[in-house]
Amino acid sequence: MRRFIIVGHKTPTAADFKLDDMAGGAGRLDVLLRCVNSAFFLSHSIRKDVEVYLVLQGPPHPPRTVRFYGPEMRYLNPDERSTGALVRNALLKQSKVEARSSPGVYVRDIGLREVIASLPAECQVVYLKEDGLPLESLVKGEDMAFVLSDHMDLSDAEEAVLKERANGTISLGPTSYHADHCITIVNHRLDML
Amino acid sequence: MRRFIIVGHKTPTAADFKLDDMAGGAGRLDVLLRCVNSAFFLSHSIRKDVEVYLVLQGPPHPPRTVRFYGPEMRYLNPDERSTGALVRNALLKQSKVEARSSPGVYVRDIGLREVIASLPAECQVVYLKEDGLPLESLVKGEDMAFVLSDHMDLSDAEEAVLKERANGTISLGPTSYHADHCITIVNHRLDML
Repeated sequence: MRRFIIVGHKTPTAADFKLDDMAGGAGRLDVLLRCVNSAFFLSHSIRKDVEVYLVLQGPPHPPRTVRFYGPEMRYLNPDERSTGALVRNALLKQSKVEARSSPGVYVRDIGLREVIASLPAECQVVYLKEDGLPLESLVKGEDMAFVLSDHMDLSDAEEAVLKERANGTISLGPTSYHADHCITIVNHRLDML
Repeated sequence: MRRFIIVGHKTPTAADFKLDDMAGGAGRLDVLLRCVNSAFFLSHSIRKDVEVYLVLQGPPHPPRTVRFYGPEMRYLNPDERSTGALVRNALLKQSKVEARSSPGVYVRDIGLREVIASLPAECQVVYLKEDGLPLESLVKGEDMAFVLSDHMDLSDAEEAVLKERANGTISLGPTSYHADHCITIVNHRLDML
């Protein structure tokens, strides 16, 4: 499985945002929606071996995590608006145990620490950050999880949680990219290995 | 200048589409909007050395081309909806000569042939297609234009127009990607050269 975990620092944890204002009132949910697109979409299909965790840390009930699970995924379209509707539907549910909101979409009231703890022991966890090793040092694995942040950096506390478990840090070069672009670049690199 | 030319085969050439339905009623305009995002956005800035041509071939008045010009660009945001509004504003103007609809956004009633003919003589034109040379053979140039299609392939007639001028064809590998993802991959590759 190829996994992408993206932290949305200001993204709301309730379903009361407008689909017309996801870049403004919805705490840059638009960034996370483009990450879902980049993770899953191929030209005329979606990647079944991908899983995406959106870790939402905005008001009113942080943290909550929406999980997109490739093998079961249905009703996923490439545009931001329709994926925003899937996230909004997921946020209507509130649950300490994971609840399914639509085929392949799950929600649970957990944060980054619990998401990372839930990964299989054999999963290689990779932090994507400007000061990491070159992309060329990335070796393909059977089970890999890439951790990224939205338009804000991970906090020191989040970095500490991640570094307890991360197998390495990879950089995409001297230029700093949007999270969704990073996912596209990583997917392409792994496709070419 | 780094240029991206994207052909939207069904994208409307009038401003009467809804911003709430760009993936449906607007002939997959959403694909082209994500291309604009991929071409321009860096983590906390936009690329000033980029130019994007959206060649629109849908009803009612094809072809029309909306041009995004990096050095003058303002009011460009990464979400699909706000870029869709810029395209809609551009399509309100109808002009045989190029008209400016907002800072850095221009519209003209021309198609792929005229767009390619308008490129400077020194510009290297590259066709991005599955059966091209490996991405590693791409050499950075001062002035490059990459031609891509939306969710449909270029027609034989469009390919013929392009091949009269193209300096080469580059492939991103055996996997077929969305146009916006191709742009992200090319931008990253050029950034690393």
